[in-house]
Amino acid sequence: MSPDPTGAPGQVLVVGTGLVGTSVGLALVAVGTDVRLRDRDTSALTVAVSRGAGSTEPPAAPGCVLVAVPPASVGRVVADALREHPDAVVTDVGSVKGEPLDALRAGVDPEALTRYVGGHPMAGSEQSGPWAASAELFRGRAWAVTPHPGSDPQAVRVVAGLARAAGAAVVTMSPQEHDLAVARVSHLPHVLSVLAAAQLDGAPSDHLALAGQGLRDVTRVAAGDPELWAQILAANADAVRDLLLGVRDDLDRLLAGDVDTVLRRGVDGTRVIPAKHGGPARAEAVVVVAVPDRPGELARLFADAGRSGVNVEDLRIDHDPGRPVGLVELVVQATSADTLAGALLARGWPAHR
Amino acid sequence: MSPDPTGAPGQVLVVGTGLVGTSVGLALVAVGTDVRLRDRDTSALTVAVSRGAGSTEPPAAPGCVLVAVPPASVGRVVADALREHPDAVVTDVGSVKGEPLDALRAGVDPEALTRYVGGHPMAGSEQSGPWAASAELFRGRAWAVTPHPGSDPQAVRVVAGLARAAGAAVVTMSPQEHDLAVARVSHLPHVLSVLAAAQLDGAPSDHLALAGQGLRDVTRVAAGDPELWAQILAANADAVRDLLLGVRDDLDRLLAGDVDTVLRRGVDGTRVIPAKHGGPARAEAVVVVAVPDRPGELARLFADAGRSGVNVEDLRIDHDPGRPVGLVELVVQATSADTLAGALLARGWPAHR
Repeated sequence: MSPDPTGAPGQVLVVGTGLVGTSVGLALVAVGTDVRLRDRDTSALTVAVSRGAGSTEPPAAPGCVLVAVPPASVGRVVADALREHPDAVVTDVGSVKGEPLDALRAGVDPEALTRYVGGHPMAGSEQSGPWAASAELFRGRAWAVTPHPGSDPQAVRVVAGLARAAGAAVVTMSPQEHDLAVARVSHLPHVLSVLAAAQLDGAPSDHLALAGQGLRDVTRVAAGDPELWAQILAANADAVRDLLLGVRDDLDRLLAGDVDTVLRRGVDGTRVIPAKHGGPARAEAVVVVAVPDRPGELARLFADAGRSGVNVEDLRIDHDPGRPVGLVELVVQATSADTLAGALLARGWPAHR
Repeated sequence: MSPDPTGAPGQVLVVGTGLVGTSVGLALVAVGTDVRLRDRDTSALTVAVSRGAGSTEPPAAPGCVLVAVPPASVGRVVADALREHPDAVVTDVGSVKGEPLDALRAGVDPEALTRYVGGHPMAGSEQSGPWAASAELFRGRAWAVTPHPGSDPQAVRVVAGLARAAGAAVVTMSPQEHDLAVARVSHLPHVLSVLAAAQLDGAPSDHLALAGQGLRDVTRVAAGDPELWAQILAANADAVRDLLLGVRDDLDRLLAGDVDTVLRRGVDGTRVIPAKHGGPARAEAVVVVAVPDRPGELARLFADAGRSGVNVEDLRIDHDPGRPVGLVELVVQATSADTLAGALLARGWPAHR
């Protein structure tokens, strides 16, 4: 285990070089960490190495092993890592935390299990694989760290330190609470997105000519890898099932004509999501952002601003050739300024009103 | 009726100065049309006038009356307009076309009804009211024009001309086909977004700390005005009900454990939505856009690029002080270049690969 009291893990071994594993490698290499990569899919591994996510040299007493394999393999690969690296902290990035922990408790001795702390970065993409990876994937995103009662506090610090080093904001909770939370904020929305998209399969093309941005937003995540999602939904089946039964009750309410109640609960639900606000806008305000003078930073800024849903009314750029950082003023409706500033801050931009 | 063979309507009276009515006014004023505004809500009317969407002078033999009132009032207000303006073409922007047409057939003489042609711009916002209006709201969006069998062909040309003058792409279909189409691409996705959001109402704030972009995308439209949506769903109840029964079948399939089939149909469904493609990206390509050298144009470009869902990897701006138009090169993954170029073209940008 790492002797560094700050929780820095020293060398990190990433097992599994898909989208998330490769992105962790890229983010850690960017802050100077010695990252070793392993994947039995040699083509994925080659891509990850070519993108600069780490090296394939065998690990030498890594401080931390990060397991980034498909959900159904997490328990087995974590158990192997605990055996193979008897001094390392072991974490994973699986979307479900309770089921693999149960498997580990059944198959790993309790002393070794003190070195395991689950984790789950709340970042992903409807794309997959190392080509879609980015060192910025975790910037400003939540990373759930889920200690079990037997986890060593120093191991928890190592995993939290790794998440922060990758740019994420650490949210600590129990594995059980995590699984209830992601059922609600990730797995159920995914299922409902799929149900909307499934009704388009086989639709007349005339109908699709009327498709607008709302349809694209609602159905975007439904394009996610169905094999991965089948594993996720299976591993969190109980929590998802409870919510789906709630949805079926609401659906029956709608079919019985009780539309108002459900629509109003929907509006209330959108209001509790952090960093999103509604309502009409009245006057303009300026959000100022400091932007590094590097290619792509402006594009990233405006892409992030676009994703926030806030309409940028106007723009001023302060070009000072002598400075490595420029100031960009985004003019927006006054009631949207907090939303935009919050969304940009959450994505790592130094933004203020 | 307009004597202009191009279908230009001459003076246009807009009845109802909410988001859509005010946006139509702004878009038509921008191309030189004489727009008159009416709304019994004098504060909405004052805002619309102050934003430049038209004047409150009484209309003088308008070529076209555009009715932009809540769905439940469309039939009555269209009937009034046909009586009050015996030479005008009358259209509306309601989200449902069959029910108001049935009401009109019951209450308006067939000769007058030849001057009515329904319409539905596929543009909106989770915001509402004249403050949220924009002359650009319809730019590159579909605008359904829905003649009934008795519609005069010249009246159809007037309504299509008005939609094109507002910047939209005209899609002509029957009122019945329109209602089936929007049930699938708009009303059902709205309901499923609401069902996802409704499960957040009362959720522990710890759960919401794990909210990511996927949740925000799926639930964004659920913030829409519940009174408006109750009217829309009521007016298209049969078509929505048929789809909701299909969703309940899929939901029961999921609850019975048949997850794979439904997930795969969802992926297939996302693939038939126009101008969206999935899959991993392999190499870079450049999309070149000509941008007028005016404040706000770059912000609008990047906001539109962000809404396309395509990640802009890099950016080059060709600043030539002597030219009123600059060239912006957007560098994206090669497999996304067509998507980005198509999305920008659809929003009116001169973009090419």
